[in-house]
Amino acid sequence: MIAEKMKPLLANNSAIRMMFEEGNRLALIHGRENVYDFSLGNPNVPAPEGVKQAIMDILNEEESTAVHGYMSNAGYEDVRDAIALSLNQRFGTNFRLENIVMTVGAASGLNIILKSLLNPGDQVLVFAPYFLEYSNYVRNYDGELVVVSPDRESFQPNLTEFEEKIGRKTKAVIINSPNNPTGVVYSEDTLIRLGEILERKSREIGHPILLISDEPYRELVYDGAKVPFVTRFYRDTVVCYSFSKSLSLPGERIGYLAIPDEVTDSGELIAAAVIANRVMGCVNAPSLFQRVIKRCIDEKVNVEAYNRNRNLLYLSLKSYGFDCIKPEGAFYLFVKSPLEDEKEFCAVCKKYRVLVVPGSSFACTGYVRISYCVSYEQIERSLPAFKKIGEECGVRPQ
Amino acid sequence: MIAEKMKPLLANNSAIRMMFEEGNRLALIHGRENVYDFSLGNPNVPAPEGVKQAIMDILNEEESTAVHGYMSNAGYEDVRDAIALSLNQRFGTNFRLENIVMTVGAASGLNIILKSLLNPGDQVLVFAPYFLEYSNYVRNYDGELVVVSPDRESFQPNLTEFEEKIGRKTKAVIINSPNNPTGVVYSEDTLIRLGEILERKSREIGHPILLISDEPYRELVYDGAKVPFVTRFYRDTVVCYSFSKSLSLPGERIGYLAIPDEVTDSGELIAAAVIANRVMGCVNAPSLFQRVIKRCIDEKVNVEAYNRNRNLLYLSLKSYGFDCIKPEGAFYLFVKSPLEDEKEFCAVCKKYRVLVVPGSSFACTGYVRISYCVSYEQIERSLPAFKKIGEECGVRPQ
Repeated sequence: MIAEKMKPLLANNSAIRMMFEEGNRLALIHGRENVYDFSLGNPNVPAPEGVKQAIMDILNEEESTAVHGYMSNAGYEDVRDAIALSLNQRFGTNFRLENIVMTVGAASGLNIILKSLLNPGDQVLVFAPYFLEYSNYVRNYDGELVVVSPDRESFQPNLTEFEEKIGRKTKAVIINSPNNPTGVVYSEDTLIRLGEILERKSREIGHPILLISDEPYRELVYDGAKVPFVTRFYRDTVVCYSFSKSLSLPGERIGYLAIPDEVTDSGELIAAAVIANRVMGCVNAPSLFQRVIKRCIDEKVNVEAYNRNRNLLYLSLKSYGFDCIKPEGAFYLFVKSPLEDEKEFCAVCKKYRVLVVPGSSFACTGYVRISYCVSYEQIERSLPAFKKIGEECGVRPQ
Repeated sequence: MIAEKMKPLLANNSAIRMMFEEGNRLALIHGRENVYDFSLGNPNVPAPEGVKQAIMDILNEEESTAVHGYMSNAGYEDVRDAIALSLNQRFGTNFRLENIVMTVGAASGLNIILKSLLNPGDQVLVFAPYFLEYSNYVRNYDGELVVVSPDRESFQPNLTEFEEKIGRKTKAVIINSPNNPTGVVYSEDTLIRLGEILERKSREIGHPILLISDEPYRELVYDGAKVPFVTRFYRDTVVCYSFSKSLSLPGERIGYLAIPDEVTDSGELIAAAVIANRVMGCVNAPSLFQRVIKRCIDEKVNVEAYNRNRNLLYLSLKSYGFDCIKPEGAFYLFVKSPLEDEKEFCAVCKKYRVLVVPGSSFACTGYVRISYCVSYEQIERSLPAFKKIGEECGVRPQ
């Protein structure tokens, strides 16, 4: 019955499902609190109290048919205006409401922009390690994902290989900073050089290359790290944002695309994005949460809770002798596998009821991703297990 | 910059936009209350009070990270269970939670099922008049829409032509009852014959044809009309539902797919639908409103308000001499144009500041759609204009 294109997705899905079911099986045997699940990216910090208050206020103050009704496919104008203003104040941009398209989360924003952009066979470049769903998003529109191999020293993008891989078929590049799975923030120097390469190569191949900046982790940064606003470095840049992490609302599916006037054919691209939002069936971003965003534009989740988790887990793993770059953002550690095959290492972890994701799931073997968007207590309880895992794998405390 | 496939959509969109802007222009000149806009399908009846109460209760009783967090891509299990149970009680079906996939409204449900199903070149049949977005949904997956011409007597599906148009490439059929734009409910007799044809033809062409029943208007019926539950008539049937109209929540984007076990390869089709939900970027239906649905599964909007509108507008137009089938459901009248070219008729209407949609927008020329999901007062105020429009077009009171 099902489409040919869906068949490989089904096969792959079974693998993810098996991991999930394995977690449930372990929880049944040992109790949920004795399974240390670090595999998911589901925020454990609650939404700010202001979100609840905003919902109550909206329901009491605004008309039901306006709050829950259809609006323009791009979203409520006052909400888009509030977002444009907030971005302009924070990053010195010049957005008007017309540059903002409300989306069903960042994943839908990425799909919308890729549908607006890609002809069959067009190539989209990404830097490993990357969120593997990108390949599905690109394939939805018969595009081809081209992967630039990781720089395992800094986990900044490998720009030399990047430049080599740009060709006539290159239509877009997706970057993600703060990065899932490494927690690395792309530096200003990286972005300057990235912009220069894109400008040079666009001229060379004779058409613009769209830089798509996927930024769900923008607000989750530590030790005062700054995440440069990418539109400053290259004109053909689109920002894809989500409130999933900044307001702990991943299930609500609320985000936006920012498409600056400077982008080539920006008017057409904005119109195409709005139409793509409609014809792919989203129609519009959920209306109540659009209204919430207007009232909560400056709210933030408790980032300090993630920072506490980060420090405990990072310092503990380092003290056991594990090798890991200190993340400046997001809520992941990307730890070097002490065994050559990181899947074997994942298996050892599982013996100690620690669930982590192999780097191969991010096109970067030899590493594992550990999500620390879990309770502090889970991290505390799991530390003896990590210590034993290190010992079993021959890791030596420094 | 934009994809070739998007270009015709952009051109077409400008036409819709022009109509919308024309409405705004008229409102500026004559005042919003003196423009009688019957062009939109945006419910004007508020959501039931129970929805507001449910939201308040959820925010007070349930955990923020659970209410707003990720869940399975198919939706919360308890919500799907509640929907399955409600369908079983009302329609004698045998759904389990596994048969229900929560979606971002019915439009997204349709996209998900079409992505799960279609190979390039596959044909999807629809009965005119139909909601024109179907053609975009089918084209998203490189399918081909095949239109069965309308039966202008009854506006029941033209089953003779339907049977002739089924061929080897036929993969699915979309029906929509109560129907947008006619308000007609497909009769049990129609569905029995439709099921028989599909069964016979599936055997003949050697593969199953999926019947997709798009049912956003199921609960909006009048005079005790019954909408037969379609899965009873043909095994390979999928139901695509939305709460947009039954709970007046169109902006919230909440609905579901019901995929019965009886459907060929149902396990695979359900899995594919869940994956399509994920990879197309919806990820999951909005979480708070999933939780609302569980608490409001038996709530209904005030259908009587629509009925009052229907009776006033239908009886008035008939008394002026217009020709129109009496709608049993939805909130539209499909009125025969007294001028041969219904676009000319729309232009006459506009002279009297009455905005209606030409039937060509539903692949059925010679008619116009009048949405009565507006205030009763708007209908009252507009009646003199309709009378004059009738007179100008040579319509005679009966």
